[in-house]
This record gives sequence, C-alpha cells and structure tokens, in this order.
Amino acid sequence: RAERVAHFEQDVWSIFTPLALECQAVNLGQGFMNFPPPDFVIEAARDAVTRNDCNQYSHPKGRPRLRNALAKSYSPLFNRTLDPETEVVVTAGANEGIFSIFAGYLDQGSEVILMEPFFDQYISNITMNGGVPVYCPIRPAGDSSKDMPASEWKIDIKELESKITPRSKIIVLNTPHNPIGKVFSREELEEIGALAIKHNLLIISDEVYDRLYFDPMKHQRIATLDGLWERTITVGSGGKTFGTTGWRIGWLIGPKALVEPALAAHTRIVFCVNSPLQEAIAVGFEQADERGFFGSQIKAYEHKREKLLNVFRELGLSCTIPEGSYFILVNTDKIQVPEDYKFPDLLWNRPKDFRTCYWLTKEIGVCAIPPTEFYSKPNQVLAENFARFAFCKTDETLDAAAERLLKLK
Amino acid sequence: RAERVAHFEQDVWSIFTPLALECQAVNLGQGFMNFPPPDFVIEAARDAVTRNDCNQYSHPKGRPRLRNALAKSYSPLFNRTLDPETEVVVTAGANEGIFSIFAGYLDQGSEVILMEPFFDQYISNITMNGGVPVYCPIRPAGDSSKDMPASEWKIDIKELESKITPRSKIIVLNTPHNPIGKVFSREELEEIGALAIKHNLLIISDEVYDRLYFDPMKHQRIATLDGLWERTITVGSGGKTFGTTGWRIGWLIGPKALVEPALAAHTRIVFCVNSPLQEAIAVGFEQADERGFFGSQIKAYEHKREKLLNVFRELGLSCTIPEGSYFILVNTDKIQVPEDYKFPDLLWNRPKDFRTCYWLTKEIGVCAIPPTEFYSKPNQVLAENFARFAFCKTDETLDAAAERLLKLK
Ligand SMILES: CSCCC(=O)C(=O)O
Ligand SMILES: CSCCC(=O)C(=O)O
Repeated sequence: RAERVAHFEQDVWSIFTPLALECQAVNLGQGFMNFPPPDFVIEAARDAVTRNDCNQYSHPKGRPRLRNALAKSYSPLFNRTLDPETEVVVTAGANEGIFSIFAGYLDQGSEVILMEPFFDQYISNITMNGGVPVYCPIRPAGDSSKDMPASEWKIDIKELESKITPRSKIIVLNTPHNPIGKVFSREELEEIGALAIKHNLLIISDEVYDRLYFDPMKHQRIATLDGLWERTITVGSGGKTFGTTGWRIGWLIGPKALVEPALAAHTRIVFCVNSPLQEAIAVGFEQADERGFFGSQIKAYEHKREKLLNVFRELGLSCTIPEGSYFILVNTDKIQVPEDYKFPDLLWNRPKDFRTCYWLTKEIGVCAIPPTEFYSKPNQVLAENFARFAFCKTDETLDAAAERLLKLK
Repeated sequence: RAERVAHFEQDVWSIFTPLALECQAVNLGQGFMNFPPPDFVIEAARDAVTRNDCNQYSHPKGRPRLRNALAKSYSPLFNRTLDPETEVVVTAGANEGIFSIFAGYLDQGSEVILMEPFFDQYISNITMNGGVPVYCPIRPAGDSSKDMPASEWKIDIKELESKITPRSKIIVLNTPHNPIGKVFSREELEEIGALAIKHNLLIISDEVYDRLYFDPMKHQRIATLDGLWERTITVGSGGKTFGTTGWRIGWLIGPKALVEPALAAHTRIVFCVNSPLQEAIAVGFEQADERGFFGSQIKAYEHKREKLLNVFRELGLSCTIPEGSYFILVNTDKIQVPEDYKFPDLLWNRPKDFRTCYWLTKEIGVCAIPPTEFYSKPNQVLAENFARFAFCKTDETLDAAAERLLKLK
C-alpha cells in the first residue's frame, strides 16, 4: 500500500449512503436526485447508444458535439467566445477533472489554499498528487443560532492572504458553495482574484452548482473579472446541471495553456470519458434554452428549498439559508440525542455531528451528512453543531422527511 | 505544470486517429469496433437510462448488479467463488483501473517490471505515481521475416529475473497480448508466477482481451495457478468484451486485501463509474452464456483475422499470427516508402515505423499504428520494421482496406 493512500479514513458517503438504505431512512444525505433527469436528455441517451460512433472511444478532450455545446452555452456567461477546440475539456465527472488539475500542476510540497468547509474529495485529490492543503475558514459573521443568509458566511481576506507562502500554487474557490450554499459576491471574488494575481496563484473555480442559484443572487464567475480568465480553470458538472450525478460527465473551461497540463493528466488517467452520455449532455445544452430548462429547474429547487426550510422553522432549528446549491446547513444544538445512546464502533473517533447524523438516520429516519467531513481536523469544532440536509429530492420525499423530522418537536 | 506531466510526448492515438479521419483512410489503427455492440446490451442501456436509480451515483466499488454478474461469470474461470462484495471493483475503463492500482501501490522510486512491447499508457500511469518502469523485451524466437505464430515471441526468464531489484514492487503481465497477439502458455505463466513469489511482487494481469482468443489457444489465468491468487490483480474490460470501448467500464478482480489500495485510490480519483452503462454490461454478462455470445464473437473475430491475414499473405508481407486480441503485427520491410517523401514536422524525431504508418495512412489510405509506441526508447529498434493493424472492424471495412493495401503489390 502506497504512502499516498495509507491514511485515508472511510469517507462519509460510504458510511451514510449504505446506512440510510439499511435503515430505510429518507435520504437527505448525499447530494443526488431521486427524480428523473429531463425527458429530452434521457431520450438523447437512448438514441446515442444506438449510434455506432457513440459507443466507441471519444477524443480525450471530449466529443466535439459536447465541446461545441458547452462553448456555445458558456460563452455568454464568460463574456467571451470560448474555443471548443482548446478551452473546453470533458472529464469523467467534475471530481476527475479536479484531480487531473492537481495532477497536472502540483509537485511534492506544493501548497493549495482551501476555504473551509470544502468538498471532502479535494484533500485526497491534493495529497495523492504530492500537494499540501492549507486551510482558511469561512466563518458565519452573524449569529448562527438564528437563521441567516449564506452570504453572512465570510472569508477574512487578511487571514486568507496570511496562508499564502512561496510554495502556494493554487487557490480553490467553490461557488455556489457546498455545503454552505453561499454564492460569492462580486466584491468577494474581486478580493480573492486580487490575491491570486498578487501571489501568482492558479485559481480552480469549482462551479458545479452554477445553474442552481436562487433569486436575487446571481452566480458570478471569477474568470470574468479583469485579468482572471488568464489564471482560472472553471469546473462544471453535467450531473448537477441535468440531474444525472451517475453519468460522470464534467468539464474544465479555461485558457488553452492552463487546461493543457490537466488534459495531459486526464488523458493518462482515464484516456477518455464515456461517449453516449457525453452525447446526451450535449443535447441537453443544445436544447436547454429553447425549453427554458435552467429557469424552470431553479424554480423547482426554490420551491424545494422553501419546503425544507419550513420544516426547520417549525422545529425552531436555525438554518443557513442557501443562495445556491441544494444543501441546507442546520444548527443542531436543540436536537437532544440521548446521552446513553449506543453508537457503533465505527463512530468512536468521529466528531459529534457524526453521532447526531447517525442518530437522526437511525432513530428519526432522516439521513443528513455531518459537515465536519468538510473541515480540517483543527477546525472541526466549527461544524460539530451542524448537519447538512440535501433538498435535491422529490416533493414526496421532502414531505416524508418533514413528517419524520416533526417528531423532533 | 507539474514534473509528473512535463515530459509527455503526444500519444500515438491523438496523432493517428485524427489523421485517419482527415485522410479518409480506412482506420485499422486504434483498437475500437466500427460495428455495433450486441443488441441485447444496447437494449439494456436504453432501458437503464429510464430507471431513476441508474442515473445517480453508484457505489465506488461498482453497482451490486454488475459486481454480482462479474463474480458469477468469472468464478468458474478463476476456479473459485469470487465474492462480489470484496473481490470485484468496477473502474472507469481498464485504464483507470490500472492507474488506480499504481496509485494504490507505488511510492517514489518503486519499480515496475514491464515486458515490452507494452500498452503505452502503462508508462505514464507508473511515472505519474512516482514509479519507475523497468523493461524486459519479448523477442521473436523465430525468423520474423516469415509468418510466425505469436507464441514464438518469448520472454527469456533469466533476463526477466535480472531486471528485479529490491525496489521492484509490481510485475505487469498482459495476456492475450496487445500488440503481439500472444496468449501466454501455462508454462510461461508458471515461470513468471514463480519469479513473483520468489521476489514478493504483486502481479497486475491485464487480461482485457480475455474473451478474444483463437482456437486452439485457450486463455490461461495466472491467478488460477498455485499461490498466485494471493498476489494477483486481474484487469478486465467491458469495452473489449462487448464491443463498447466508449462506455468506459472496466474491472479489477483479486483478493480483498489486494484490491483495497486500488479501490481507495479509485474512489478519490473518479468517485464512481457511470451507472447506466454498468447496468447494461451487467445484463451483458447475465445473458452472454444463454445467448452463446462469447463463442460466436470468437468465431466472428477468427473470420476477420483470416480475412486480414490473407491480404498480407497475398502481398508477401510476413505477419505474427495472433492467438488472441484483435491485432496483427506486420513486417513492413518490403514496403517501399519513397525516400524523398515529405513528412510533417511532428514526425521528425519519431522512429521509422511512424513514418511508414503515416505514409500508409496518407498514400495507401489505410491507417496502422507504429508499434515503437509500445517500447522504451532503447528497444524501439526492435519494432521499427513493424506496423500494427486492428481487425475489430466490419467485413466491409476489412474488404475496403484489402483493396487499398493490394496497391502495394
Ligand atoms: C462524492 S459524492 C458527494 C455528492 C455531493 O456532491 C455531496 O453530497 O456533497
Ligand atoms: C488508449 S486507446 C487504445 C486502444 C487500444 O487498446 C489499442 O488500440 O491498443
């Protein structure tokens, strides 16, 4: 067993997803949809597998049709004409895209600045490539025992700058943010961007939830700010965009010279991405606008967000109100887990929120994710009193969760 | 750009596949099918994308249905009851599976013994994970200016042992072999296995062509030999097995303790594999036997092999006659490339077979792959006078290739 995989702990997904199944809990844990992708995208997939060329290797960069569709859909959002030949790379999910960027850029000891909480896979993606994660917390500026908008979670830009060293190579931004639901404001992006320029950092902008934001917030792209296109790779996700988390289609967008090292790594790691589902996601982008898909998807999620927020309001549990993504961070201070409750061995060395979420799953029948998974060890204390609930679920599922959660009253 | 990707040359696939398209050459280069996968597998894929659970994340190990189907299909071939829970891992193509094994096992300076020729991606998969490839040639024992069975390509087991050092961790075996078409005999496997035991090496047995062998050869599995299950991870490929190279479904089979480090890496690199096409490959295995699929596929390939061999016989070009896989190595000594032919800049520092294959593609209209791509630099001289032709193509394509190749007469 190599050193690079020697210290992995069991990840939160492989604890809670099977647990939810086993307990027949309503699963508001892992962020996947339990409703179907849009019909026109499914139809495109059904069609693609009947076409010979869609069943064989694609170019490592991705199928031309998908790269063209991405360039067309994203050019207006980036305020520039994206070149589908050189500025778009299709990856085996956003995860493999991010891994490939780290593989393409990090040498032994290279540092990567992360704002925490962060998507947990970043850490292994960095350390497996010889890098060292360096953490800067995003802190709730308000009183987290009351409801507050996600925008009140703030980075202290001085603190962020203090984390930069001569070994820093990359800063990772995630907006809309998982698990906070924060959509970074233009001013925040400008401050972060200025740091990146001043210290010559590459920016990975993980924007997998870029089509999921709620009025009046509008997702802003750091790559559109002055001087930042040149140093930003933006990451996107077909799974989040079209409700197909199991299709493993993601993409990187950035200047040719910047995406090239990631493409070089990606080509060696997976060679190419599955062809028929690329074709279907291409059709998704080709037809999304005429069908008003992104707008109606946002409306649907807005409704789901309200539905779930109302449950916590009724319970008197304070929430971070997400401006994007499909997660709600809930303050669990008022949830009484019996002191003598017997937890399984696998939780013995885990923080308190693992126990809260386990108990919720097992005894209340609603699965949530412990957000300390998204923190470095020293900062896990910041998150022990929260649980993350996903609302990318059918209304029926959210109603069933509500019914069970109201037992907490 | 990280050191680990700094020295990559453009790979042969991204030179010759686009070139073949551009020249409208008959493409016998990259090993992909231009005929459809079996109907029952396509139908299963069409069905899977309509089922909600097939469109969301799978378990990182792979979908239970596919792991069960693999365990059931492979147990008799491994002479043991495979445990689908712990001894089978589904990967994003065999390539990502192999990358994940190296990621799970290699530390800086760990050595990996390769027999050459070898599938070119092995090298980057090793070096990206800090490993050092060490090479031992497979040499034609007979006279390669005459036709000869692939079995006459031999490893000198003394030479192979001489490559082992205290830093050696892994030996890679590939049978049926790409590009030679050799199916290793039981005696050869025993010798290699004995070395692995003596020097405590992990064996990666790349058996992606395991369903493609020609009478009277029968594919043998090194993991079935005494004491070798315990130290072997066998790699398989849905793309090769069902003609779906673009679906990116591969697998690892081996003892729990052995596959675990690879699974740990795989989970971080891609998280999981696309769900609907896993489901379809599961159906493929579930129904293959009752439909006699593997047998009739072998018959079809046998016919294609003869078809293409006959062309080279008619041209008086000597061949290695493959016992498995879908490639023919052809001795190109007698092919006269005009001395004053103008080659593009991109070939200036490449060996002679790149020029032969370029000329064949451009002027004869049939694309082949230069096999020096599969050799370490010092041993490329062993392969400069060969070209690799793939016969995983429709009969019409093979006929069209024949017509063009006969111009060489
Ligand atoms: C690696 S599975 C995680 C899914 C997801 O994005 C989340 O729930 O945060
Ligand atoms: C990485 S594409 C190579 C396809 C293949 O297996 C071959 O042609 O050798």
